[in-house]
Amino acid sequence: MSSTAGQVIRCKAAVAWEAGKPLVMEEVEVAPPQAMEVRLKILFTSLCHTDVYFWEAKGQTPLFPRIFGHEAGGIVESVGEGVTDLKPGDHVLPVFTGECKECRHCKSEESNMCDLLRINTDRGVMLNDGKSRFSIKGQPIYHFVGTSTFSEYTVVHVGCVAKINPAAPLDKVCVLSCGISTGLGATLNVAKPKKGSSVAIFGLGAVGLAAAEGARIAGASRIIGVDLNSNRFDEAKKFGVTEFVNPKDHNKPVQEVIAEMTNGGVDRSVECTGSINAMISAFECVHDGWGVAVLVGVPNKDDSFKTHPMNVLNERTLKGTFFGNYKPRSDLPSVVEKYMNKELELEKFITHEVPFSEINKAFEYMLSGAGLRCIIRMGA
Amino acid sequence: MSSTAGQVIRCKAAVAWEAGKPLVMEEVEVAPPQAMEVRLKILFTSLCHTDVYFWEAKGQTPLFPRIFGHEAGGIVESVGEGVTDLKPGDHVLPVFTGECKECRHCKSEESNMCDLLRINTDRGVMLNDGKSRFSIKGQPIYHFVGTSTFSEYTVVHVGCVAKINPAAPLDKVCVLSCGISTGLGATLNVAKPKKGSSVAIFGLGAVGLAAAEGARIAGASRIIGVDLNSNRFDEAKKFGVTEFVNPKDHNKPVQEVIAEMTNGGVDRSVECTGSINAMISAFECVHDGWGVAVLVGVPNKDDSFKTHPMNVLNERTLKGTFFGNYKPRSDLPSVVEKYMNKELELEKFITHEVPFSEINKAFEYMLSGAGLRCIIRMGA
Repeated sequence: MSSTAGQVIRCKAAVAWEAGKPLVMEEVEVAPPQAMEVRLKILFTSLCHTDVYFWEAKGQTPLFPRIFGHEAGGIVESVGEGVTDLKPGDHVLPVFTGECKECRHCKSEESNMCDLLRINTDRGVMLNDGKSRFSIKGQPIYHFVGTSTFSEYTVVHVGCVAKINPAAPLDKVCVLSCGISTGLGATLNVAKPKKGSSVAIFGLGAVGLAAAEGARIAGASRIIGVDLNSNRFDEAKKFGVTEFVNPKDHNKPVQEVIAEMTNGGVDRSVECTGSINAMISAFECVHDGWGVAVLVGVPNKDDSFKTHPMNVLNERTLKGTFFGNYKPRSDLPSVVEKYMNKELELEKFITHEVPFSEINKAFEYMLSGAGLRCIIRMGA
Repeated sequence: MSSTAGQVIRCKAAVAWEAGKPLVMEEVEVAPPQAMEVRLKILFTSLCHTDVYFWEAKGQTPLFPRIFGHEAGGIVESVGEGVTDLKPGDHVLPVFTGECKECRHCKSEESNMCDLLRINTDRGVMLNDGKSRFSIKGQPIYHFVGTSTFSEYTVVHVGCVAKINPAAPLDKVCVLSCGISTGLGATLNVAKPKKGSSVAIFGLGAVGLAAAEGARIAGASRIIGVDLNSNRFDEAKKFGVTEFVNPKDHNKPVQEVIAEMTNGGVDRSVECTGSINAMISAFECVHDGWGVAVLVGVPNKDDSFKTHPMNVLNERTLKGTFFGNYKPRSDLPSVVEKYMNKELELEKFITHEVPFSEINKAFEYMLSGAGLRCIIRMGA
């Protein structure tokens, strides 16, 4: 048992006091974990668009002050009552969505949308008592998606913690907490391209490139990247993308361009932008008879997916996925193993690294569209 | 070799001279089969909505005079050059769509939408020479979907003929040529409900009831029938339907009614009406995480399938199917075997029978919504 178990821990955290304002490094108090909770020492965290989206808080109910962060790797410091799967010292990835192992979703082989621990961006407190474990001089600081990894220590529900191989370098595999697994799983678990097949990837950000990496691993022979920014093609080649289409370069819908390139359509497509037009194009660009389109990107509230029903009837399939259909506790350890056995490459996703004290730089990189993932080194 | 091989055959056919007008029994001349064609003696045929739809020819380019009919059972009379799979005397089902066994679709395990022989409702002639094999005193009579089974003899492309067990009663298994296989396969091959699962069937006509029969065979424990005509529920019970919802009885969308009945949605749904609103309801009534909706019904030209993309992202699947995803030549013989080994019941689909001379009665039954399938006995 660590000497800090059962005690409040004082540590550094990057606190968002207001929407869109730079984070402020503060000393926070982190309460001990309660029943079915674990307290983690975070060693590395990275920044994902979702953090930025809720930090900007445009058009949402703002919830501040808050500690963001959800892609991370760390070590269990102590565990609360009833936790039997984890012990201090275990290497883990916290995840923004969970796996209670008890609900209908967790018991279904097909779903990872746990009833108890499914992502909830509006909740800023722990499930057990409806309170926060973070405070500054008695003022509660809200959690974010149950992880809040922009803190040297954080408290997480045990169902949102994947125990991984302790030999895995946390500064690399931390990116598997969210975006990379989301894209990778969308291809490997949902689109399931066959060896030698063709795959179109819409959006060549980190998630889209992870989807391309999945297609590369699956042995796809043609991986067509679609993005409005042609500069992304060069980078994308590292992820297996073989051809590039910029919809702006054509005066017809991109689905028609792709159909012409592929004698009727691609075998699979994966949509990673969240743009409703890209979703429709991604569906309509797959081949009739066998094409499967997978939606990953999160749409706007008022969007409507529209297509002629004959596009469906001609034996096309439309599927959605959440976190790449990975069950966080059951499946993430095996994704880490894919990295360990060199099947999956992660280094190419990591384009920047900053010490925790310079976390706002990571926000600047993302807002300017520079690079893919910026690793934030804690305790530095 | 039969004595008629290579000769023109004179026989009776029910000819549609004009859109919507009663068929007229005529003596027609049926030319011998050309390369890759077979001439069949039709013993039993039945009437399907698609015959009626194109006979009414509302909003379509009319193609008359024409011999309709595409659900049938018969015996090979003679074969044309290059036909090696079939010989005179074989028991067969002609099918409105084909399987050339050479194209990308036929070579794909996932598709049955043959490039060469996919249904074509606008073509009234044979592929080989672009001409009809039917004539009356030198005037060509158009074919319908390559089958034209409302004739004692017809000529069909070999790729549109399924050779079946000669012990199978053709007056029963003839209904497997189209509608029954379409509904059955939509459930068994595409929706694939697990034992003990819940399935919603939209539309309780012959195709929908065949989809319900598929759910019954798959071991679904709840089969919810949805129809605007409540009188259909009693009949539907014979096909395994356990519960009934008439959307007219509720003042909220039927997808919400079904979600309430099933704690969040059904595991699978199959849409067999062709109504765009039913298609949307069928998709939105499946459970998040694992629900699969299958569209079977053919929509109107101007319809648009609309749903919020979050309904997809929450791990629902939308699929379309054509002829139940059965490959006509490869798969139909095994459907006949399902009937022979009493797994599949066909008798309950057959509600009427008329001699060929009274074929117009079959049209009347269908137009008045009476019964499911009317068998037309040829040579009588």
